[in-house]
Amino acid sequence: MVKQEKSDNHFIVDCLQYANWSPKIFKEMRLGGVNCIHVTIAYHENFRETVLNLEKWNEHFNNYSDLIFHAKSFDEIRQAKKFDKTAIIFGFQNPSPIEDDIGLIEIWSKLGIKFMQLTYNNQSLLATGCYEKNDTGITRMGREVIGEMNRMGMVIDMSHSAEKSTLEAIEFSAMPISITHANPSFWHPALRNKSETVLKELSKSNGMIGFSLYPHHLKNGTDCKVTDFCKMIAKTAEKIGTDNIGIGSDLCQDQPDSVVEWMRNGRWAKTRDFGEGSSDSPGFPDQPSWFQSNKDFKNIIDGLDKIGFSKVEISNIMGKNWLNFFKTSFSSG
Amino acid sequence: MVKQEKSDNHFIVDCLQYANWSPKIFKEMRLGGVNCIHVTIAYHENFRETVLNLEKWNEHFNNYSDLIFHAKSFDEIRQAKKFDKTAIIFGFQNPSPIEDDIGLIEIWSKLGIKFMQLTYNNQSLLATGCYEKNDTGITRMGREVIGEMNRMGMVIDMSHSAEKSTLEAIEFSAMPISITHANPSFWHPALRNKSETVLKELSKSNGMIGFSLYPHHLKNGTDCKVTDFCKMIAKTAEKIGTDNIGIGSDLCQDQPDSVVEWMRNGRWAKTRDFGEGSSDSPGFPDQPSWFQSNKDFKNIIDGLDKIGFSKVEISNIMGKNWLNFFKTSFSSG
Repeated sequence: MVKQEKSDNHFIVDCLQYANWSPKIFKEMRLGGVNCIHVTIAYHENFRETVLNLEKWNEHFNNYSDLIFHAKSFDEIRQAKKFDKTAIIFGFQNPSPIEDDIGLIEIWSKLGIKFMQLTYNNQSLLATGCYEKNDTGITRMGREVIGEMNRMGMVIDMSHSAEKSTLEAIEFSAMPISITHANPSFWHPALRNKSETVLKELSKSNGMIGFSLYPHHLKNGTDCKVTDFCKMIAKTAEKIGTDNIGIGSDLCQDQPDSVVEWMRNGRWAKTRDFGEGSSDSPGFPDQPSWFQSNKDFKNIIDGLDKIGFSKVEISNIMGKNWLNFFKTSFSSG
Repeated sequence: MVKQEKSDNHFIVDCLQYANWSPKIFKEMRLGGVNCIHVTIAYHENFRETVLNLEKWNEHFNNYSDLIFHAKSFDEIRQAKKFDKTAIIFGFQNPSPIEDDIGLIEIWSKLGIKFMQLTYNNQSLLATGCYEKNDTGITRMGREVIGEMNRMGMVIDMSHSAEKSTLEAIEFSAMPISITHANPSFWHPALRNKSETVLKELSKSNGMIGFSLYPHHLKNGTDCKVTDFCKMIAKTAEKIGTDNIGIGSDLCQDQPDSVVEWMRNGRWAKTRDFGEGSSDSPGFPDQPSWFQSNKDFKNIIDGLDKIGFSKVEISNIMGKNWLNFFKTSFSSG
């Protein structure tokens, strides 16, 4: 009971999930006291395909209106506790849903899209992904898109982007940007994790990073201990403070392995790319025992408590920092 | 000055226009005291093409924000006078923008589409158009779409539909339907005009008809006198009362003739269809001298006054009836 009360006192925001959505998972969100989740609507889909994904979410909102609701503004998000439902906000992991058409940013904004990654691992029309050899930085179209996203209150997300592109996005954007789901590379030097330079420029500009619970982003992967994860947060806080950090779990609960294969390969490769996996272990890695579902945020709260974060700091890390960021970022939309 | 004051006292609604939109026309809307216009966003366009049309309107709203605004609800429409701008509401003349996908109705509703015709002259997936030989009535998909439009507060428009399909739409729809732009066939027996049976069933169910100023819908076409047009309104009012009638001018100002050819032929015919025109006169017919632009609604107001309509009746016909209809119809959206 004590543990449950602890999470109940916080406004919990998870700034990235891509689960295989079901009533079971929506119920777990409520059991875990999760108040707001940024869900991925598109990986490689074009405009029309992404609309089909939105239609599926319209069905979820209709069928499970007692558990979740679509939040399109900060004001709607902050009412999640009052509604006793989880606020769902939408984002893209790739700019494929805007194709080559900048006018689609306003269309998507009107349909409630709040985040867009400028790249997903590969070079896009806008910027360079973290797995490319050469980093162009922000392209001509990329600069235009950043301006338009700023105008519409759509947040730039550089989670899967390369270093120079990320630094330029921070520089060129009039609004703070986000890295919704990644960890510092000083802790675990995965290509997807972020350098101290990026973390410092990000926090200096009031941007946010969400710490990831995806095993390939964790030191010791599946075997990572919650204490080690929380120590990594403490170490990051020493470097950039506690105001610009949050959670972006990257939880892909109940997804079949075909989904991670599709995330990595989309339609861009005929040869198979294993991304952060390998030919020996091509599927989704197992989640750590202490973070299996939306019911497990209490374990992170406990971990942060044990290593000495104050109650206020824990509350900020678990959701308040994201809430403040949403308030500023979504206002122009 | 007196004439200008007269139109200023009314809340003028025109429930159908498809002009070649320009700042000139937006200014004329203000000069003519027009408070709300239902504009056509799509004739034959598929989903993606219609989104491109919406993008153009986003540019108009951005560039001419002192003259027009996009109204997505009754509450926004009724503020048009306070804003001193013309409220623009969106509609489709054909169900092509939903393709074969009923989920797109909710998507379009979220993007502010308030009207959709179930057919445009031809058979559609939903119903039969007025130029077909055989009238299927409402199809299987048509019944589903009517239910979904009712749920979303999107108004069914049967302006270009055949008789049986129109009567069934009235019967099957839980909400009143509209014929946004047409005239009674007792006055001018064009295929596009409507029978007394339709007009009576429409008004009995609280549906609305908007009288058209498009020459092919007028007795004597371009030479139709404003008095004759107003007498037709009086005659209709004798049959169905004054609460369910309004204006839907079908004004296609400044459009090149290529546009009317495209309206009639879309991509469905290799041979050329002349619709209400003919091979001798394939283009847009000239508008009557007394209704050339949005500045000319005062001529209709004067005409209605001269043949004996009361001030209240004129106010209802020129906009209040549509406003009442919008209030009921858009509420569920």
